[in-house]
Amino acid sequence: MNKIANKNNVTWFNGYVSREDREKLHGHKGAVIWFTGLPASGKSTIAHLVEKELHRQGCSTYVLDGDNIRHGLCSDLDFSPKDRTENIRRIGEVTKLFVDAGIIVLCAFVSPYKKDRQKIRTLFADGQFLEIYVHCPPEICTKRDKKGIYAKAKAGVIKEFTGISAPYEPPENPDLVIHSHRQNATEAAKHIIFSLKQRKII
Amino acid sequence: MNKIANKNNVTWFNGYVSREDREKLHGHKGAVIWFTGLPASGKSTIAHLVEKELHRQGCSTYVLDGDNIRHGLCSDLDFSPKDRTENIRRIGEVTKLFVDAGIIVLCAFVSPYKKDRQKIRTLFADGQFLEIYVHCPPEICTKRDKKGIYAKAKAGVIKEFTGISAPYEPPENPDLVIHSHRQNATEAAKHIIFSLKQRKII
Repeated sequence: MNKIANKNNVTWFNGYVSREDREKLHGHKGAVIWFTGLPASGKSTIAHLVEKELHRQGCSTYVLDGDNIRHGLCSDLDFSPKDRTENIRRIGEVTKLFVDAGIIVLCAFVSPYKKDRQKIRTLFADGQFLEIYVHCPPEICTKRDKKGIYAKAKAGVIKEFTGISAPYEPPENPDLVIHSHRQNATEAAKHIIFSLKQRKII
Repeated sequence: MNKIANKNNVTWFNGYVSREDREKLHGHKGAVIWFTGLPASGKSTIAHLVEKELHRQGCSTYVLDGDNIRHGLCSDLDFSPKDRTENIRRIGEVTKLFVDAGIIVLCAFVSPYKKDRQKIRTLFADGQFLEIYVHCPPEICTKRDKKGIYAKAKAGVIKEFTGISAPYEPPENPDLVIHSHRQNATEAAKHIIFSLKQRKII
């Protein structure tokens, strides 16, 4: 047992069961696979396919998703730069809890700012955080977009839309790049599973 | 696969792996055991002991704790009534994600307001949420308090301290009451494990 105190008399109690204990129980490491890329680039689709295969292999998994997190934890936040940063900060902290619980978390978020993604990386040990850049040219994203959000963004109906009216900063040194206009989602998922094995996460 | 849309063109994609699939993998239900009570009433101690035993039995568990959550996800919040409510709201949403991941989450928070705890309950299906009132007279809490936080609160060094300078609203119909001044933590943990079996969570 280990205790760490901070400025507000708040103490961190590590408990009896450690991350390592939970990893042993699950038979794999706790880790985060962080997908970043433009809206409709394929992040969520690939993340869910990876989860499907990991689950089939008996891994404890969970997908945190730009869409579904905004219904709950971040329902109070909008798409302004300040709120986007807070959105990603909270997701990072939640992801940390999941990794500590020995889960493989798949995070599919536009996460457009480099500095926000870099902050997330600092929350994790080496080898726990895998940044995957889902690269897709904006014109292909627009064509793929079944929800019609690109059209709405271009018409100004949706404000502060990444790639149209808000910036996207691509990662410089991602752990993996998926060119989702050249590689289909199933192939991309296989590629990622292979990488997790190489890194001894599974 | 199921999609639900909300006001901001945000769609909830349920994915391929369901809570039920994850529960089957883990061999138990996803559920939340929510401990409420005065500071130093024994919530965290009991929660960690319950986790220890659940882990021994092969369950996938995690403790969310008033102490450790405030280092990360809620490090931007103070102890004002408004921030306490936001603190509990965020924890509720995170807990929901963990339960959806098929985990047994043990939440040990003062959570002093009845309406906040009731809101949390509405996030879960019947049988997924177990409210445990850790009851302990304030004078015993004060004696037990190793961190000296009651003394600091009485001296006014810590403001808005539940039981001293901020209210605590006890639950009217908790699922279980632990009288932590009459029952030791190990007995309390056994009592809770028995209750989880009765409810077919484990």
